[in-house]
Amino acid sequence: MKIPPVKGTRDFYPPIMAMRNHLTDGWKAASVRNGFEEYDGPIFEMLKMYQVKSGDEIVEQLFSLQDRGGRDLAIRPEITPTLARMVNQQINALPRPIKWFSVPRLCRAERPQKGRLREFFQWNIDIIGIEDVLADAEILFCAVDYLKSVGLTDKDIVVRISSRRMLAEVLKAIGIPDDQLDPLYVLLDKINKLPAEAFSEKLAELVADSNQQAKIQALMQAKSIQEIASVTPLTETAQAAVEELNRLFDTLKTMGIADYCMFDISIVRGLAYYTGVVFEIYDREKTLRAIGGGGRYDNLLKQFGGPQVTATGLGMGDCVLGILLEEKGLITDLSTRNLDYFVACADGQYQSKAIEITAILRNAGKITNYSYKTGALGKQFKQASEQKATKTIIIGSEVENGQLAIKDMAAGEQSLVDWAEFVSKLAE
Amino acid sequence: MKIPPVKGTRDFYPPIMAMRNHLTDGWKAASVRNGFEEYDGPIFEMLKMYQVKSGDEIVEQLFSLQDRGGRDLAIRPEITPTLARMVNQQINALPRPIKWFSVPRLCRAERPQKGRLREFFQWNIDIIGIEDVLADAEILFCAVDYLKSVGLTDKDIVVRISSRRMLAEVLKAIGIPDDQLDPLYVLLDKINKLPAEAFSEKLAELVADSNQQAKIQALMQAKSIQEIASVTPLTETAQAAVEELNRLFDTLKTMGIADYCMFDISIVRGLAYYTGVVFEIYDREKTLRAIGGGGRYDNLLKQFGGPQVTATGLGMGDCVLGILLEEKGLITDLSTRNLDYFVACADGQYQSKAIEITAILRNAGKITNYSYKTGALGKQFKQASEQKATKTIIIGSEVENGQLAIKDMAAGEQSLVDWAEFVSKLAE
Repeated sequence: MKIPPVKGTRDFYPPIMAMRNHLTDGWKAASVRNGFEEYDGPIFEMLKMYQVKSGDEIVEQLFSLQDRGGRDLAIRPEITPTLARMVNQQINALPRPIKWFSVPRLCRAERPQKGRLREFFQWNIDIIGIEDVLADAEILFCAVDYLKSVGLTDKDIVVRISSRRMLAEVLKAIGIPDDQLDPLYVLLDKINKLPAEAFSEKLAELVADSNQQAKIQALMQAKSIQEIASVTPLTETAQAAVEELNRLFDTLKTMGIADYCMFDISIVRGLAYYTGVVFEIYDREKTLRAIGGGGRYDNLLKQFGGPQVTATGLGMGDCVLGILLEEKGLITDLSTRNLDYFVACADGQYQSKAIEITAILRNAGKITNYSYKTGALGKQFKQASEQKATKTIIIGSEVENGQLAIKDMAAGEQSLVDWAEFVSKLAE
Repeated sequence: MKIPPVKGTRDFYPPIMAMRNHLTDGWKAASVRNGFEEYDGPIFEMLKMYQVKSGDEIVEQLFSLQDRGGRDLAIRPEITPTLARMVNQQINALPRPIKWFSVPRLCRAERPQKGRLREFFQWNIDIIGIEDVLADAEILFCAVDYLKSVGLTDKDIVVRISSRRMLAEVLKAIGIPDDQLDPLYVLLDKINKLPAEAFSEKLAELVADSNQQAKIQALMQAKSIQEIASVTPLTETAQAAVEELNRLFDTLKTMGIADYCMFDISIVRGLAYYTGVVFEIYDREKTLRAIGGGGRYDNLLKQFGGPQVTATGLGMGDCVLGILLEEKGLITDLSTRNLDYFVACADGQYQSKAIEITAILRNAGKITNYSYKTGALGKQFKQASEQKATKTIIIGSEVENGQLAIKDMAAGEQSLVDWAEFVSKLAE
């Protein structure tokens, strides 16, 4: 009975697994280098966890299930709610700042398309307990540190940065009331996706005053943080929010990553829960979806029944990133196996010697395979090459004199060595 | 709103995550050392995948769900069906032998108890395409290699080994018909769990002939492979199966792991799909459940719509193993963070220098954190110690003279170094 895989999922055959490991190992190394600690949660949570953060619409995008007690669960579509739950559970025991990372497997019941699958992996880094933009800068530095480590440069990628807090304060200075902000964010988030006319129409639906409309249009054209002040007179809080953003960019410069970063007022992020700095990472030509994104979310822990604790973080999936790295030619030579030794055997009567030396090599920490079949050496050498063996040991009648033939696969040279001497050197 | 985690799952806070990584990193390293390639599949498969292998009873133990098209899916309770599906899909393209490993996250809707959770991680190694017991020996060597690598010795653990093929052939030699073997395996698998009388009663229900009953009882008392022949005259095929088992033990001896292995005729394994060597790994005192188990399954690929291809493998979960390692005192000093450098700052006016040197250190591959707060050094040193920093850099007025103070945390010694010199040494 032949059964197909589930639509929108991937089978990680060894070469594809090597690619996945290349991404996830890099994420882990960058996280560790930047002083983050690893955490993880269960693959599923109570369904309502996701409703708390994202409302009831999210349920359609979830793979939901029930446990034996009839409780509604869902496979995690993101790990931030789990993070909030876990931090809240130990809020008084955890030393702050909390700098945590995770590389969760996530599932979303979306229509599979380029860069979007139903099952994927996502890098998450979060800093909890630091209100200063230093923490936002730290998140951005870590993201860029990773992207540089896999070979991407400021010619390839850019982090587009804005601030929800700045946007809120400037919109309020323009005269938009508090309760109009959330629907406006949803529209402003789409400014680059909608035709200009459609955007104007929708803006007029949300904002009646044409003077305010014009100011919002002008604001959304601002190419630099400096231009914001020319749109409308800034209140004191708006001025402070603008200065905070300036300080973020100063810090990014101090960190040496200014060339990877730019101000982009159109970065709003759809989700209601962002409260400060927001950002999205794109390929320079913007031919792909966002590689990653994130920002400050100061209210989430409280929403999950904890205290008001400030937080900021990033998510970066493996799908778009993988496409970009392939396109840039940055995925080369990902071997599924790199043997130190392959042990070939010319004559079946000596196979136990091949098995013995294989065990000795492995015990010494050497990556080793041996040939289950003995005899014709051609096939065995081919296997050794396929498995990227550095050296091949050939077991033949020499073992009767306590000797081993060792072939250097790159140089093609073969030499006889003393078994006992070889083994004692390995043990060193 | 406070939402609890799902019953039977674990929250991997950094110290618990460090323990999980200790186990999974060790599994991966042993697999690589033994020449296996890593693979993985999706977290869910079509529900019927699991019914094919384990029958309809399995459905109760599954977390099942539906996709948007109404198809019945299940979160994987094991990865072997996925392995069979994947290998079948590329059966003609994959070079043999296929030596693959995986460390899947698995879920089973069982009652949580000691060593058994609803979500766990399991190491899987499989060799496909080698009929010889050499492949079984290779699986066992790799398992023991791993267990030794985490500090377990032959005083702590033992691999109990038998053979389904041997058992089948000897039972047939005793006179048991083919179609009686499967129900008999289920009973024999429970011989150590049932009281002797209950076992005898159930045996009598399955086997009418009292002479045959006596022979089966005698067979199940065999303490060595040699004793098997004394139970009943062996047919030629039974003799061959016994010799194969002898050859397995000879190979284990050649590999140097004989002290970790023993013959145990009571190892039968419940599942119908085993066809040859079967084994379970236990702590010596057998106070815990099996640490791992496996064996040869020559028909599974065919059952999944592929050709008849021989295979053998092992599964080892993280729960019982973790308990054993804790009990044996083999879990020590698992740090969640080991900084190379912590950067402290004595005076807020120099914080940008702290940020700059932190970026430089990270760019040089050093694991580094800095203090978001400046001023009082006591707290910052405490943070440096908590994060296991090897060295702490103290940024103060010395930076005005182009100098850095560096404290060796173990020795407690502090010295002044030239900034430019320090940075150029890092780059080397």
